[in-house]
Amino acid sequence: MGTLNQLQPGTVTLVGGGPGDPGLMTVAGRAAVEQADVLLVDHLAPAGALDWAAPEAEIIDVAKLPRSTFTPQEKINTLLVEHAQAGRRVVRLKGGDGFVFGRGMEEVEACAAQRVPVRVIPGVSASVSVPALAGVPVTHRGLVQGFSVVSGHVPPGHETSTLDWQALATSGTTLVVLMGVKNLPSITATLLAAGMEAHTPAAVIADGGLSTQRVVSGPLDTIAADAAHILPPAITVIGDVAGYAQMALTATTSAAEEN
Amino acid sequence: MGTLNQLQPGTVTLVGGGPGDPGLMTVAGRAAVEQADVLLVDHLAPAGALDWAAPEAEIIDVAKLPRSTFTPQEKINTLLVEHAQAGRRVVRLKGGDGFVFGRGMEEVEACAAQRVPVRVIPGVSASVSVPALAGVPVTHRGLVQGFSVVSGHVPPGHETSTLDWQALATSGTTLVVLMGVKNLPSITATLLAAGMEAHTPAAVIADGGLSTQRVVSGPLDTIAADAAHILPPAITVIGDVAGYAQMALTATTSAAEEN
Repeated sequence: MGTLNQLQPGTVTLVGGGPGDPGLMTVAGRAAVEQADVLLVDHLAPAGALDWAAPEAEIIDVAKLPRSTFTPQEKINTLLVEHAQAGRRVVRLKGGDGFVFGRGMEEVEACAAQRVPVRVIPGVSASVSVPALAGVPVTHRGLVQGFSVVSGHVPPGHETSTLDWQALATSGTTLVVLMGVKNLPSITATLLAAGMEAHTPAAVIADGGLSTQRVVSGPLDTIAADAAHILPPAITVIGDVAGYAQMALTATTSAAEEN
Repeated sequence: MGTLNQLQPGTVTLVGGGPGDPGLMTVAGRAAVEQADVLLVDHLAPAGALDWAAPEAEIIDVAKLPRSTFTPQEKINTLLVEHAQAGRRVVRLKGGDGFVFGRGMEEVEACAAQRVPVRVIPGVSASVSVPALAGVPVTHRGLVQGFSVVSGHVPPGHETSTLDWQALATSGTTLVVLMGVKNLPSITATLLAAGMEAHTPAAVIADGGLSTQRVVSGPLDTIAADAAHILPPAITVIGDVAGYAQMALTATTSAAEEN
């Protein structure tokens, strides 16, 4: 599908930047960064990847946009369109994958509405890779045949929640909760009330894959208290596979030693 | 976490190869392929990535291993260990991400059991990227706050299934079904019986992101019949976001034109 093609002037390329280590950017994403005239960068995008940008490229940190008459996302959409319409090769660089809680489709729609050509380069999603880098496989043969990735930014039962946490508790999938640090007590209480067993393994992983990675693991009924000191961004994994976080696997040990 | 480090002799590196386009390999994954003395490659691994291997590297197509006294996975585990113990830099290259139905943890455990150092380089999972490349975001603000990735290789209710499809139907997440082509009639019937609405958008995507990509979209109650002609490998997305597959987004149109 031509991910290695040259970027054209007047276009927008949405690049998923992976979980933080620039080595986990895609080859096509790196090529796009190298060719960009202007980069709009999130606070969770891999900072090291900006070393690949051309010296003359303009780098806009959209986490620091002033809040005026626009919400930041509307402002980002406007910037993408305006820079492309000025004939630039625009790259939008985010952490993880742009379509996993990344508001990527909103940006695609904003560009399409103004007939600005836009291309999506998927990234390594933190939802799968951060557990992996902590030694936790989201699926494992004989143990679990699926995983659910959910936002924890609103608590279970909140009026704006579209999730049924009782159903998630009984779905038989590994649960991967993003943006759930603050609401972890409410989330775990809801899962326990729905019948998930108290000793179900859980793990909270902060700064996944970076030299500052921290992992707290424990049973579902105490993990919220055990991980109360963890600050966002962090990912919580709940399910039998989370038990792997407690094992001293050569994989994660050697990765840690290389930092 | 040092993904760009040199590969050491006598080690195994598990590389997630992404959905098929070599541009969707990671930078670290490409570097590993370039340094490998021996590569063990799956049939869903990105074939184009092998162009990056050294001319003298040995490439073993493990999809074509003879079935002798070992099942293929046990044989693969043995080969990984034996080649590493012979002092080689071993790369295991798979499609997607090795921990999403990739049996990656089995290979980590096999290496760890023999004290062979093993490192995991996550990849772009087909579960998220194949929908994205067909214009379907697995999450979308205001529409859905999560997605569930499940294996459809055994039908709902089968004695070996660990999934509760009724719960999945009511979880409020986008459903992404891998390996579900054969069982799609049974899966959709189960979801409908569990109360999922007949007009819920669905899309079946074959050869995602490749020049041969095909997308069939339609409502849940007819998608199995509509997509009956699709052969594996294909991914099925069920949920409101699948409606995006029907839209002529500039994103996917331009991607297709570049092939």
